[in-house]
Amino acid sequence: MAAPGSTGTWRWAIAGTGGIADAFTRDLALVPGAEVVAVGSRAPETAEAFASSHGIARAHGSYAALAADDEVDIVYVASPHASHLEHALLFLGAGRHVLCEKPLGLSVAQVQQMVDAAAANDRFLLEAIWSRFLPAYAELRAQLAQGVIGEPRMVEAEFGFVMPFDPIHRLFDPALGGGATLDLGIYPIQLGHLVLGAPDEVAATGHLGTTGVDEHVAAVLRHPGGGITVAKASLTASLRCGATISGTLGTIELPPFMHQPESLVVRGLDGERTIEAPITGVGLHHEALEVQRCLAAGERESPLLTHAESLAIAGSLDAVRAAVGVRYAGE
Amino acid sequence: MAAPGSTGTWRWAIAGTGGIADAFTRDLALVPGAEVVAVGSRAPETAEAFASSHGIARAHGSYAALAADDEVDIVYVASPHASHLEHALLFLGAGRHVLCEKPLGLSVAQVQQMVDAAAANDRFLLEAIWSRFLPAYAELRAQLAQGVIGEPRMVEAEFGFVMPFDPIHRLFDPALGGGATLDLGIYPIQLGHLVLGAPDEVAATGHLGTTGVDEHVAAVLRHPGGGITVAKASLTASLRCGATISGTLGTIELPPFMHQPESLVVRGLDGERTIEAPITGVGLHHEALEVQRCLAAGERESPLLTHAESLAIAGSLDAVRAAVGVRYAGE
Repeated sequence: MAAPGSTGTWRWAIAGTGGIADAFTRDLALVPGAEVVAVGSRAPETAEAFASSHGIARAHGSYAALAADDEVDIVYVASPHASHLEHALLFLGAGRHVLCEKPLGLSVAQVQQMVDAAAANDRFLLEAIWSRFLPAYAELRAQLAQGVIGEPRMVEAEFGFVMPFDPIHRLFDPALGGGATLDLGIYPIQLGHLVLGAPDEVAATGHLGTTGVDEHVAAVLRHPGGGITVAKASLTASLRCGATISGTLGTIELPPFMHQPESLVVRGLDGERTIEAPITGVGLHHEALEVQRCLAAGERESPLLTHAESLAIAGSLDAVRAAVGVRYAGE
Repeated sequence: MAAPGSTGTWRWAIAGTGGIADAFTRDLALVPGAEVVAVGSRAPETAEAFASSHGIARAHGSYAALAADDEVDIVYVASPHASHLEHALLFLGAGRHVLCEKPLGLSVAQVQQMVDAAAANDRFLLEAIWSRFLPAYAELRAQLAQGVIGEPRMVEAEFGFVMPFDPIHRLFDPALGGGATLDLGIYPIQLGHLVLGAPDEVAATGHLGTTGVDEHVAAVLRHPGGGITVAKASLTASLRCGATISGTLGTIELPPFMHQPESLVVRGLDGERTIEAPITGVGLHHEALEVQRCLAAGERESPLLTHAESLAIAGSLDAVRAAVGVRYAGE
């Protein structure tokens, strides 16, 4: 078992200072053995403001400066989607372990580069699909493994809300990897992958807005054995945001919101029951705990979301984008 | 206003003697001015047994004999899907009005022939998508027209159950127009058409069973303006069988079963309310009432399900079958 960092704790750095960086940093306080030692940003002012707000020792005014900080074990990459590749390669190349916000890359090609870089540098890399590490998802895996709903046949899930149109908001800006699929659709799609494996066919339709990003999308994925995932994502409709897994013997429902459920409703041959699985904090500390567990065990990827699975999820996202006609710069 | 038949009632005949013919005939007893005067079948025995069971005066041992019965105003076609075209043309050509079970034809080409035959013979023709004529669907139209959920953006609906595999059952027999799409998927798809109009793009995936019919299907339809329908149908998974219409200001839910709902749940800006819309009888008499209303008004199609809409729905079903690879004889 590898020892934690030289201070006796795992020394975390935060790359990025947006809303998710703020929430994650607050949640790290719930993780035993975690210490936030540095933050980096594009600009000194934002790094310093974030460091001051969170009581972080070192504020770096550039990502390069953060990468050069040798007193860091793990970098949490919370920059916009379109910067994940650059930043993950930067920190992996500097010898840091990386927890990178989802989507890991803008495309399967980008994710492959990141996975390759992790291997080349013998560093840990994990896509921060935080849902995967929540108690409800652990319970979901257990229920499926016990066969309470028989063979899973259909996964239906959705994530959508009405987002007031703003052409310079990251969700509407193609240069920042905008669109509903990568930011919201990834949650329903990763659930389909979790339950049914990687798909062998993806079909989708969607509506593109004036900035060219997918504002309203529905995708259907067929998996080996004939199971189907139905995934919906929207910036223009308030969807229920639940998920249902239908099997040959019953169903498991993830009540809204399916990306952060606190219970499961299992309907099987012996009736309906609700399994509580509450979240503490915001819930982002569960993924941080998994990072530290993997590192302590000398693992370079998490069995709860392997590199192969992140690649497969990126492949599904690519297929959805291709079907609805969303292309990012350089594609 | 046209007068009813010479007996002072609308004289109905039943073509077919299966389960739906039985249910419909019983429900006709709830329709003022409706009289069932004849039944026809492939074989005299089944026609006679049905006539005896329902107290019907004339039993015809062939569909041709039924068509020649001039004391009939309206024929309800309840034969298997693959016989709808032949039987509808037969009865329309004989001068009868026709209410034909759904799907009207196996393909848009078949539906076009039926619509053309109705026009050529100046007869009434209606596809028996009975849901359309239920009180809950009338309420749905009213709520949408009032704008209680703003602009509808997504229609999600499903119909699926675990059907034990039986290669000679009509649902698994391609020669009888089997598969989940035509028998079950038509309900979610017609709802999408009702709310969002005919689609301009259809994508789908599905799993074909050993007999070559679609046993498990999910389709996404994009409509003009960017609305999306998500439709699921299955013979191998027990789905919830509800429907949700999500708009810019709220949602309308059709609780299971979405093809025969007895209430609507409206969630809008002013909270949630349930609108009761109970069904009397089996609920099949509502479509019969509409047939008689149209005939009394001299109409040759119902405004609640026009020929153009039946053609468009058939087009969507064709597109789904093409995507999942189901072909019927002669295609």
